[in-house]
Amino acid sequence: MADQLPSWTDGPAKAQILEFVRSVTEPGASFVPAADRIAAFDNDGTLWCEKPMNPQADFLLRRWEETAQAHPGKAKEQPWKAVTEGDQAWLAGVLAHVPELTRGVTEAYAGITVEAFERAVRAFFDTARHPVLGVPYTRLGYQPMRELIDLLTAMQFEVYICSAGGRDFVRAVAGQMYGIPRQRVIGSGTTLEYRHGAVYRTKGVEQPIDDGPGKPVHIWTRTGRKPLLAAGNADGDAAMLRTARFGLLIRHDDAGREFAYDAGSEKALAKAKERDWTVVSMQNDFKVVFDL
Amino acid sequence: MADQLPSWTDGPAKAQILEFVRSVTEPGASFVPAADRIAAFDNDGTLWCEKPMNPQADFLLRRWEETAQAHPGKAKEQPWKAVTEGDQAWLAGVLAHVPELTRGVTEAYAGITVEAFERAVRAFFDTARHPVLGVPYTRLGYQPMRELIDLLTAMQFEVYICSAGGRDFVRAVAGQMYGIPRQRVIGSGTTLEYRHGAVYRTKGVEQPIDDGPGKPVHIWTRTGRKPLLAAGNADGDAAMLRTARFGLLIRHDDAGREFAYDAGSEKALAKAKERDWTVVSMQNDFKVVFDL
Repeated sequence: MADQLPSWTDGPAKAQILEFVRSVTEPGASFVPAADRIAAFDNDGTLWCEKPMNPQADFLLRRWEETAQAHPGKAKEQPWKAVTEGDQAWLAGVLAHVPELTRGVTEAYAGITVEAFERAVRAFFDTARHPVLGVPYTRLGYQPMRELIDLLTAMQFEVYICSAGGRDFVRAVAGQMYGIPRQRVIGSGTTLEYRHGAVYRTKGVEQPIDDGPGKPVHIWTRTGRKPLLAAGNADGDAAMLRTARFGLLIRHDDAGREFAYDAGSEKALAKAKERDWTVVSMQNDFKVVFDL
Repeated sequence: MADQLPSWTDGPAKAQILEFVRSVTEPGASFVPAADRIAAFDNDGTLWCEKPMNPQADFLLRRWEETAQAHPGKAKEQPWKAVTEGDQAWLAGVLAHVPELTRGVTEAYAGITVEAFERAVRAFFDTARHPVLGVPYTRLGYQPMRELIDLLTAMQFEVYICSAGGRDFVRAVAGQMYGIPRQRVIGSGTTLEYRHGAVYRTKGVEQPIDDGPGKPVHIWTRTGRKPLLAAGNADGDAAMLRTARFGLLIRHDDAGREFAYDAGSEKALAKAKERDWTVVSMQNDFKVVFDL
């Protein structure tokens, strides 16, 4: 039989994944009907590279730069002041935190239709390059995770992205990068308003955001289920993983091929053993990281 | 070729539906790829009978009765006062309006898990009978609409319910009644909260509710699209129908087999010609109403 996860090293993580998928799809005590096979994947750091800056932070930074150039009068106010003055410390502080990042995108793109926003996102992905690796962000999905999505899809799972980042940002590329259709992207969102046949973005942030305890809430709202399998990499994924039958926690420990960091995932890593989550070491468990 | 809509009378409505489905699924200028074929159906009065009282109103009334019996001290406060005194006018006023009904259900079932709520809904559907027709509510879906859902599903549409009523209420029976899986039920909802591995209902109402201008917002949030086909029966469906390529408006004009009423749909009916919606007369276009 062909190797279903060829970019994964043969080891405990791969074996546990394959055994779990087998156990719920073959007749037996653990069998789950296809209709109930829901999988939920975090995106930043689980499906795509989020360092040194996640793509949505880059997207927002460019918007602030455009605005600062078009309206020099704004240069005394944040965030345009930080952009104008190159205040990296201030920007890093804002762009690293999901609620601030979400609010930033929401405010920077308020008042346009959802379709116009998607065109702006597409234009960004068509032109932006990763600052270190120099390739389009759309090529920086983790190849082993794409294989896992494809395996689950082949086994009749309905696979969802459950991202703390922007739902409508990720939707623009989820099909291309992961083969996940737009209706299966769950994420944080701006408030929306219908007027005269169109849906417009407004300035608010939909509550709760899709992070931490918000993830199981969003997954229920969207699917009416708890996930059978969930995958994440950060403390904000711990609640989602806890509600899943099988939890995968990606560990960023490969400084050579990606970036090595545990910051923001300390609590989740500490819980992994107690909760019986499968910890995936990018260094040891990924034969290939990116398909470059 | 077999008749795909056998419960529909051969007439203009059936012909327009079949022609539309043909035009978007066969090669040609109007062709739409399967991945973009989203259909959205209102529920109350479009898929199931909503007179003399919609099932969710009956569900809520029974809860109030239980509470009034268990806590006689509440009999001086609304809504338990109206239940205790049999104040039909007061009850009818509350139960006929979606926001009040939604708030009522939300408050009456706050603090329990989403799974416990679903068990309460299931118990209701297993025992309640329609007050006039005397059969379980689950047998009062419109047979011709079920055929239309099945036809669209066979033509690779992804069919969603988009109900002003409770998402988690409708989910409990959407599979059984319509063959629509729970993740494709869009509707109004209570606010939710995650605690210690479970998702609990809280007292708030998620905004916007899924009615009127809220419907296109909910459809975008959940599917990332405008619907290719939308079906409704009331003024609260007009915004959704306006965003769809093909709009169906069900008219309740069959006093013999169902209930005859235009109240609450006057504006939508007045717009139908201008917007080129296909108006379905239950009397003329439905050969069969219910599969009893």
